[in-house]
Amino acid sequence: MTRQELIDQIRAKKSFLCVGLDPDIEKIPKHILHLEDAIFEFNKRIIDATADHCVAFKPNTAFYEACGISGMQSLEKTIKYIRHHHPDHFVIADAKRGDIGNTSAMYARAFFKRLHADAITVAPYMGRDSVEPFLQFEGKWAIVLALTSNEGARDFQNMASAGQAPLYQQVLKTSATWGTPGNMMYVVGATQAAMLSEVRAIIPEHFLLVPGVGAQGGSLEEVCRYGLNKDIGLLVNASRSILYASGEKDFADAAEAEARKIRQEMQPFVS
Amino acid sequence: MTRQELIDQIRAKKSFLCVGLDPDIEKIPKHILHLEDAIFEFNKRIIDATADHCVAFKPNTAFYEACGISGMQSLEKTIKYIRHHHPDHFVIADAKRGDIGNTSAMYARAFFKRLHADAITVAPYMGRDSVEPFLQFEGKWAIVLALTSNEGARDFQNMASAGQAPLYQQVLKTSATWGTPGNMMYVVGATQAAMLSEVRAIIPEHFLLVPGVGAQGGSLEEVCRYGLNKDIGLLVNASRSILYASGEKDFADAAEAEARKIRQEMQPFVS
Repeated sequence: MTRQELIDQIRAKKSFLCVGLDPDIEKIPKHILHLEDAIFEFNKRIIDATADHCVAFKPNTAFYEACGISGMQSLEKTIKYIRHHHPDHFVIADAKRGDIGNTSAMYARAFFKRLHADAITVAPYMGRDSVEPFLQFEGKWAIVLALTSNEGARDFQNMASAGQAPLYQQVLKTSATWGTPGNMMYVVGATQAAMLSEVRAIIPEHFLLVPGVGAQGGSLEEVCRYGLNKDIGLLVNASRSILYASGEKDFADAAEAEARKIRQEMQPFVS
Repeated sequence: MTRQELIDQIRAKKSFLCVGLDPDIEKIPKHILHLEDAIFEFNKRIIDATADHCVAFKPNTAFYEACGISGMQSLEKTIKYIRHHHPDHFVIADAKRGDIGNTSAMYARAFFKRLHADAITVAPYMGRDSVEPFLQFEGKWAIVLALTSNEGARDFQNMASAGQAPLYQQVLKTSATWGTPGNMMYVVGATQAAMLSEVRAIIPEHFLLVPGVGAQGGSLEEVCRYGLNKDIGLLVNASRSILYASGEKDFADAAEAEARKIRQEMQPFVS
């Protein structure tokens, strides 16, 4: 999907919500568990319930890998289902991969050619040649971790250092030269909303994938205040607050209501 | 596998060789390709040919994921095969994972509980809570990326900065407090051998997983000069130079010869 197509979707729906598909077998409603592929069946219901309110889906690969081969089959089926039934949605494989060049090229093949994701999240620690293989595919995206939403972001990313920009800013500056705002985005956690203005000073144009709204406590209003750009430039992700809005038979309705609520909060920000 | 068991294996074999299992379908000998699971069949022959000369095997997950579900099945079968036929070998899943805590816990489950690897490589960018879930399993290891063997290592890991230790040294110092030399190792590339003395000044006891000998150009002698500690403390990995020593019918013999050669070079260093 191109940058313009994504922006058009956001304007048409007045939403920049991304629904994280992190199906935890211990949290999936009990009445689904007897189905042959419970993870896929859960996802399918969540996808159909929330598709009108979001522009992107983001399966986190860890939740599928934890279930072994059958989990990987659920992931494949999930992305195929989105491609077939909701072809206008942007699909992010939240995989946080990154390795030496020839190996990253293998991951790019896995996620873009096999799984048909639009984008993959990538860890920047190994530098340029670990990210570039993800930038070689027309209409595909690398979403580089900059400032994540977890506590550990303080350990290295946001390390204070005398007279020096913190690591996440150096990652933004350096990595932005590897691609364009048409094939790169950045992960910037909502729990770090105040730092979004510093992020925007370095990369005014790039889309930001913002996790941490909802279960992790980030504020949508703050994210918009500091993070919006002229093309919106944001994909705000919510996972647990939508997926597990109810643990009962009404889980899809509850997910729909939660996604609708977030979309309504977003509408005033999409002109 | 415990640290002492690993050391015992190394001393018994007089080898600290790790064979990287990175089966690239485009490089696997043609006469194998018609077999039902060519990747597994290739691995099996490499494993049997090299097992006497090495103490560890390191499948890189990217090469399996690039083949989709069937590739993941090959990976599962490969690790099962090692466990069954070569139970004294240390198995490293070279996956370079790392995510927020609840997600890293899913990866830990995937690699330790499902795949039965002894160790997994982990990217440190997301900090403490992204690594700790891998340290909660008896006899299992997190191998944290410190200084990798690729060119991109210069972008952030080894960034020169006025009056400040480079990032990889900060990663070593900080992350070493998260675990012990009994459940953590570090990746330090052989192409950076001269820096191994600086690494050893910070973490004298930890095992180092050293890629980059062979195809990537690193020198075994330099790695030993700067990296050995009183318990050996090294696992030196070779992948392509062994796997693709020959692309013909004699590939297993050629792999055996190459692994034997490396082991012989290692012997004087193991007292």
